[in-house]
Amino acid sequence: MLRTSDQYRTALQDDREVYYRGRRIPDVLAEPELRVAIDHAAIDFDLAHDPANRDLMVAKDADTGEDISAYYRTPRSAEDLLARSKLIETVTAAGGTMVTLIKEIGTDALFALQRTLEGESLERVRRFYRHCLENDLAICVAQTDAKGDRSKAPSQQDDPDMYMRVVSTNDEGIVVRGAKVHTSVSVNSDEIIVLPTRAMGADDRDYAVSFAVPLATKGLKLYVSGYAAGDRNDFEFPLSSRHKMLETLTVFDDVFVPWDRVFVCQEPDKAGPLALTFVEYHRFTAVSYKLPLVDAMVGAAGVIAEMNGVIRAGHIRDKLTHLIIYAETVRALTEMAANRFRTGAHGIAYPDPMTTNMAKYTFATNYHHAIELVQDCAGGLLVTGPGGEDWENPEIRAVLEKYFRAAAGAEERLRVMNLISDLTARDFGGYHAVLAVHAEGSIEAEKMQIFRAYEPRRTMAYARKLAGL
Amino acid sequence: MLRTSDQYRTALQDDREVYYRGRRIPDVLAEPELRVAIDHAAIDFDLAHDPANRDLMVAKDADTGEDISAYYRTPRSAEDLLARSKLIETVTAAGGTMVTLIKEIGTDALFALQRTLEGESLERVRRFYRHCLENDLAICVAQTDAKGDRSKAPSQQDDPDMYMRVVSTNDEGIVVRGAKVHTSVSVNSDEIIVLPTRAMGADDRDYAVSFAVPLATKGLKLYVSGYAAGDRNDFEFPLSSRHKMLETLTVFDDVFVPWDRVFVCQEPDKAGPLALTFVEYHRFTAVSYKLPLVDAMVGAAGVIAEMNGVIRAGHIRDKLTHLIIYAETVRALTEMAANRFRTGAHGIAYPDPMTTNMAKYTFATNYHHAIELVQDCAGGLLVTGPGGEDWENPEIRAVLEKYFRAAAGAEERLRVMNLISDLTARDFGGYHAVLAVHAEGSIEAEKMQIFRAYEPRRTMAYARKLAGL
Amino acid sequence: MLRTSDQYRTALQDDREVYYRGRRIPDVLAEPELRVAIDHAAIDFDLAHDPANRDLMVAKDADTGEDISAYYRTPRSAEDLLARSKLIETVTAAGGTMVTLIKEIGTDALFALQRTLEGESLERVRRFYRHCLENDLAICVAQTDAKGDRSKAPSQQDDPDMYMRVVSTNDEGIVVRGAKVHTSVSVNSDEIIVLPTRAMGADDRDYAVSFAVPLATKGLKLYVSGYAAGDRNDFEFPLSSRHKMLETLTVFDDVFVPWDRVFVCQEPDKAGPLALTFVEYHRFTAVSYKLPLVDAMVGAAGVIAEMNGVIRAGHIRDKLTHLIIYAETVRALTEMAANRFRTGAHGIAYPDPMTTNMAKYTFATNYHHAIELVQDCAGGLLVTGPGGEDWENPEIRAVLEKYFRAAAGAEERLRVMNLISDLTARDFGGYHAVLAVHAEGSIEAEKMQIFRAYEPRRTMAYARKLAGL
Amino acid sequence: MLRTSDQYRTALQDDREVYYRGRRIPDVLAEPELRVAIDHAAIDFDLAHDPANRDLMVAKDADTGEDISAYYRTPRSAEDLLARSKLIETVTAAGGTMVTLIKEIGTDALFALQRTLEGESLERVRRFYRHCLENDLAICVAQTDAKGDRSKAPSQQDDPDMYMRVVSTNDEGIVVRGAKVHTSVSVNSDEIIVLPTRAMGADDRDYAVSFAVPLATKGLKLYVSGYAAGDRNDFEFPLSSRHKMLETLTVFDDVFVPWDRVFVCQEPDKAGPLALTFVEYHRFTAVSYKLPLVDAMVGAAGVIAEMNGVIRAGHIRDKLTHLIIYAETVRALTEMAANRFRTGAHGIAYPDPMTTNMAKYTFATNYHHAIELVQDCAGGLLVTGPGGEDWENPEIRAVLEKYFRAAAGAEERLRVMNLISDLTARDFGGYHAVLAVHAEGSIEAEKMQIFRAYEPRRTMAYARKLAGL
Repeated sequence: MLRTSDQYRTALQDDREVYYRGRRIPDVLAEPELRVAIDHAAIDFDLAHDPANRDLMVAKDADTGEDISAYYRTPRSAEDLLARSKLIETVTAAGGTMVTLIKEIGTDALFALQRTLEGESLERVRRFYRHCLENDLAICVAQTDAKGDRSKAPSQQDDPDMYMRVVSTNDEGIVVRGAKVHTSVSVNSDEIIVLPTRAMGADDRDYAVSFAVPLATKGLKLYVSGYAAGDRNDFEFPLSSRHKMLETLTVFDDVFVPWDRVFVCQEPDKAGPLALTFVEYHRFTAVSYKLPLVDAMVGAAGVIAEMNGVIRAGHIRDKLTHLIIYAETVRALTEMAANRFRTGAHGIAYPDPMTTNMAKYTFATNYHHAIELVQDCAGGLLVTGPGGEDWENPEIRAVLEKYFRAAAGAEERLRVMNLISDLTARDFGGYHAVLAVHAEGSIEAEKMQIFRAYEPRRTMAYARKLAGL
Repeated sequence: MLRTSDQYRTALQDDREVYYRGRRIPDVLAEPELRVAIDHAAIDFDLAHDPANRDLMVAKDADTGEDISAYYRTPRSAEDLLARSKLIETVTAAGGTMVTLIKEIGTDALFALQRTLEGESLERVRRFYRHCLENDLAICVAQTDAKGDRSKAPSQQDDPDMYMRVVSTNDEGIVVRGAKVHTSVSVNSDEIIVLPTRAMGADDRDYAVSFAVPLATKGLKLYVSGYAAGDRNDFEFPLSSRHKMLETLTVFDDVFVPWDRVFVCQEPDKAGPLALTFVEYHRFTAVSYKLPLVDAMVGAAGVIAEMNGVIRAGHIRDKLTHLIIYAETVRALTEMAANRFRTGAHGIAYPDPMTTNMAKYTFATNYHHAIELVQDCAGGLLVTGPGGEDWENPEIRAVLEKYFRAAAGAEERLRVMNLISDLTARDFGGYHAVLAVHAEGSIEAEKMQIFRAYEPRRTMAYARKLAGL
Repeated sequence: MLRTSDQYRTALQDDREVYYRGRRIPDVLAEPELRVAIDHAAIDFDLAHDPANRDLMVAKDADTGEDISAYYRTPRSAEDLLARSKLIETVTAAGGTMVTLIKEIGTDALFALQRTLEGESLERVRRFYRHCLENDLAICVAQTDAKGDRSKAPSQQDDPDMYMRVVSTNDEGIVVRGAKVHTSVSVNSDEIIVLPTRAMGADDRDYAVSFAVPLATKGLKLYVSGYAAGDRNDFEFPLSSRHKMLETLTVFDDVFVPWDRVFVCQEPDKAGPLALTFVEYHRFTAVSYKLPLVDAMVGAAGVIAEMNGVIRAGHIRDKLTHLIIYAETVRALTEMAANRFRTGAHGIAYPDPMTTNMAKYTFATNYHHAIELVQDCAGGLLVTGPGGEDWENPEIRAVLEKYFRAAAGAEERLRVMNLISDLTARDFGGYHAVLAVHAEGSIEAEKMQIFRAYEPRRTMAYARKLAGL
Repeated sequence: MLRTSDQYRTALQDDREVYYRGRRIPDVLAEPELRVAIDHAAIDFDLAHDPANRDLMVAKDADTGEDISAYYRTPRSAEDLLARSKLIETVTAAGGTMVTLIKEIGTDALFALQRTLEGESLERVRRFYRHCLENDLAICVAQTDAKGDRSKAPSQQDDPDMYMRVVSTNDEGIVVRGAKVHTSVSVNSDEIIVLPTRAMGADDRDYAVSFAVPLATKGLKLYVSGYAAGDRNDFEFPLSSRHKMLETLTVFDDVFVPWDRVFVCQEPDKAGPLALTFVEYHRFTAVSYKLPLVDAMVGAAGVIAEMNGVIRAGHIRDKLTHLIIYAETVRALTEMAANRFRTGAHGIAYPDPMTTNMAKYTFATNYHHAIELVQDCAGGLLVTGPGGEDWENPEIRAVLEKYFRAAAGAEERLRVMNLISDLTARDFGGYHAVLAVHAEGSIEAEKMQIFRAYEPRRTMAYARKLAGL
């Protein structure tokens, strides 16, 4: 089944408990600033119905032969992973450099759960996976706990709720309590999957828990971040007026989960492998959805340099070349991560972890410098230009048109300036920048994974041989 | 004379022609978003009346012995330049990392005009300087022209108004037309000084013009940038809710300037030296006002790392050390630029150009990386945290207090997160970042000045000697 | 035919005119320091006869079905290019990080000549190619001219010989004069191919020349560089005592070339395309032969950190991780350049130029930093350790054994120190470092090729679309 | 007293036990490769007798009014520290970028000993200081122990001799055993001062030892490093043929030290402070003697770019500007470290530790990149040029003169190439590079000192204030 974007939107009008800017929101569709995020995510459904993207967006269900969203296709080969990467890249490009994420992250989790679990747990995951696939659902994933004192394990915290935990169990299911932070797209998903955030010891038994529930579950509360709030005109904010991702503090206030939706319960040895396996997929998702962003930076720098009339200056060429190398190295490493795929349990493929982390690390550690280069090509006008209401006023516009033209007309040039300003010098840009450093794992986490994934024996043996040992 | 901040504010209620967000603003004090910038600049006057800062803020008029604003003191020594740097740093620190600029830039221009001009022109400058000093005026400087086609000289543009020009002259004065971009604090200054933006050839005679007029001069129009507009609560925006600098497109629509206020008129050989001499002071002002910003980054990274409970992690220490080295290298070079001062015409001192440019270059080329490091120490909460209205709601606040505490309480931690978010991940931060790259001269301009200011003979002779030549 | 290493050596005992350290060398095999380089190159022949490497080293002649050296296989696919890369990497690894080059560079030139030329010229190239292939010859390539005044074209130099030129032509052939610099492995090759170094204009007609002759051709003179001369014991110099590449100033003093060996003569439009096409292959050869070098750096840093007992220190892990990312990014981009192969004239494949240049650029611009990291892991002992004669003296050795052990015995540790010293802190290391910056094209040349090879339309169109244009 | 260089040389002909290249050296003056280092150090004495340098090189003894070497002047002010820095810089510049060190390091230790010790220990140090000063002695310092297992304290090692230790004490003095590595200029000094290498615990009592003895003391054995051995002509090796520093493994084989020469004996609480205080001076010595090296790099890059005819290329200017910024930032920070001097016990001044370490860190972490830039400006000829014997042969020289000229004659150009090759691509350059990373404390040690020396309260309080706390 392939839902339409309207079916997707309508399904969000349920009892979910959403708070935004200090108020309970009764209908998420009716709140304009949330609506921007919902309409952004809806792009995903619209594209699936666009014949031009059908090959990319739609797959055949291996069991039923029916059309399903291609996100749900279980990867078995390099080609599958490359197709998945291309899918994510294409939808993100249509989303103005902002990933839609409502199927990416959920399927990342579903593949990880299937590779990690066994027996009855695995069966439950598979049923849930079929449920999502058949109903073309939007899924979010809550992983990062509140954490409290970072130097202590979950069970050592003075407040036992600093990590999500099992409060009680009975024949029907379990009751959980705790909070997850940085939960993306929870406001506009159908289901939420909860994953543990780290490896757990035997004492942390109650904290080793994974499950899924619908968003409109009693006791589940979404506190939407106020970041990047506010009304935006599309002259000044060509991207952020249309594209947005919502983040929540996601509180589970004694939420009941029936056994059929419980994947891990009080099994600490599952926590670490599940967290790591999820990241194997999710960082590949990350680098795939970063590609339109780095492309936009290369392209925007080139266009504005041309419009400013400085494209032939040696130092501008040098900066454009650096941006090209940056964007294309991330792309090449992403592609290579798929080419070097590995196969896990049940024949499920995953991208090479070392190469994936190298792509992510390269993206993350050069991103702020790339911002500098783009801003350098653009000029101070990024933060001193006119506003949308100025542009609307014909008398003011005439003045702007006279004085802001260069090698291109004022309108074109100001629109590209505003694109770059939105992308690098306002909160939309700040969101991208902080995500570069922290989302899907920090820079330190990526370095740690690279060090662990690297097989040192080959090169150390070579060095010993060269030394005559 | 030392005005009070209220005297400063009241004086801005004149006929100045200001446009903001598409409308003519009749009274700049009455427009809340402009008022933020005016109140920010007013800090400068308040500090001068605070006994604690008197030594720094107040000087004696060399002619009359009266108290004057210390910005107006003509520098004659390293000590004077160090005191000026400390003055700018202190006021900027009180301004929440944002320079007030209403006296800094104007005196930069006045020192440069006095060092560059001679004869009757010099006498006019001196009279204007006395006028500003005696009345404790706020001054802005308009330098960067609209420029049009960057590959052509002012006189070669298809529209002759792309650079500020003399339209006509008569016995009383001159008429000028054109527009200047990126004019900071023009909305809230008393006087505007116009300087040429570059060296001029003989054909550009009409474009070699420098003068000063009050802001409420007929034909002078200020189009305020819409950047960073919007109402802000101080929970989410601890800095930008109180501190702001306004930038305008400043249009001179056949403005008449009486001869007494004309400093350069149709003298192309004065344009280049004046532009360069201004920059000798203005980049020193720049690096002085960057010091609170880099200090804030070091301090904020340290505080949040402590509050997050990760201050002892090796990689966090490493990042803090990098931030310290960054901030302290900029500080050391700034101080050294004053120590190595030189003396120009009329015994007016100026900081060593090479060292000043090295300080500015070091600041500019490492700033975006510093943002990355601060964001890395802080965490994703920078862009996923609650809004001010959430914090105001007691029920929501209780949830936030429970889940957002770490090694510090939730309120403290969220306030520091919001400081860092304002400073690095929202438009206030974007403003700082773009200024780092472009304000007071681009990175390329700084490199060019360093190359020119460096005396290569010593090291090249040394190399030849080492080579046996 | 596959020659043995002895057949290779013996064939070098001809009339070639070689000068080394101020003297004419009558027999290159008899001169110990030249012999090191010859024995190093001979590894290539020995490996071809080793059954373990047969699949990699030996191919079937497409025409005759006979065994040939795999270097001569014309690439038709990604697999062919990957096999060629692996071949070069493997032989270089056996060569102690030093490429043998005696077939790599020659076949690079032969593929380029076949893709660039047509008609009778192409036939001559093909005959020469068959001659080399069938006789399993070692080939060097002379490309970089003496150049004289870099601001002038070949025909504008005051001395007409600053670029290789055609002095005269007749029915039998042509006479050439000039000098090529940086000619690697000319002393120990059978044939030398001359290529033009740059694009030529119509006035440079006589300078557009390409041909091949045996090294023992009258008038051809090889002046071997004195760099890295001297006798070396293998304790202190584990690599450079066995592995060496010779460079010559290669002078053509009115050398006669028969028409059958003339590929380009007075055809200036061929010069640029031929130079560029050669580089398409040769930079791929370069990044392939850099892989053992970067692997050796990763491995040596890891081994010495372990032996020093500091492998668990956080900053050491960080440095090792940086080295891993460096080495593996070069490797991934090299592999990707082959995967993205393109097909030129006559179905001859070549690696993607942008990706090849990105691999080379990444290698070159991070190499010196990698040296710093390896030296940091090793310690000051790199330049303060004992010499080979100390180690030979039993009494001194006892002292060294007592005091130089750490987490490993003194001998092991000193041998690895000496490896790193040879690799990074002596002339063998300096040779690698300068080659990183200049060989097979400078860093600037790589940046220029990346900028040219990048297709900007896609990203610029995307940026315009995002801007609403 | 000011000795002549001949007096200095003659005094080295004593019973010192020196081993080089596997042999005991009976007379260090008679061994040509050691003689290069002795003659290099002798520059120091020659300069002191040159009237042109008298003001810099000679001071008045505060007690006797006699002329003494200026190295021995106890610093009391910024001016004294600046003069000391200038002295070290000047002598190093005369030494072809290589420090002479025979008085620098010894006085660093003597100032540190006087600031750290008290009572009878202090009196012994003062008497030894007067002895050195009055006899104008050359002094080396042995600090770094063999160390063995880096994870264990001195007293925990399986071999108790891995750190220098007191074997026994009696009425006359003490007996010490152990080895120090990386001892510079020990072969050509008169006295050796031993300092502890780190802080010691109570269990390490016997390892807390500091003293001084003449080099010709029984049981003291110097094993000279074989690094950079070999005969060198001055055409190819313009620096290393004349300038050299010797490093030894310095073994104390039950050496007796009379009490008058014992400064610390079995006082573990003195070890850490003494090691750190020494470094406060020695890193300042380091950055002072690095100035000629960074100047040589700037100058050599400029000269060769000019000679190659590429000085006007944009990328070359960019590289030269980077080198200038590098060299001048190190210089400015060094100067600032003296300006910000502090005063320790007995009124002895020392440079600001944070600024000194920042200068050293800036030097060390950018050095390898500077090498890359210099090599980039020079070209591949650095490692493919002719040797000294080629240049001596008139026939070969004629060929070289024809083909190696560019914007300068071949001789000039080759000599500058060889300078750069010696400086960056041979063992002399490798010595400088490894010293950059490890000498006078590693990069990590410098970072740790900066972090410790930085006073975080000011900026952290500022951040809290900005956050509204």
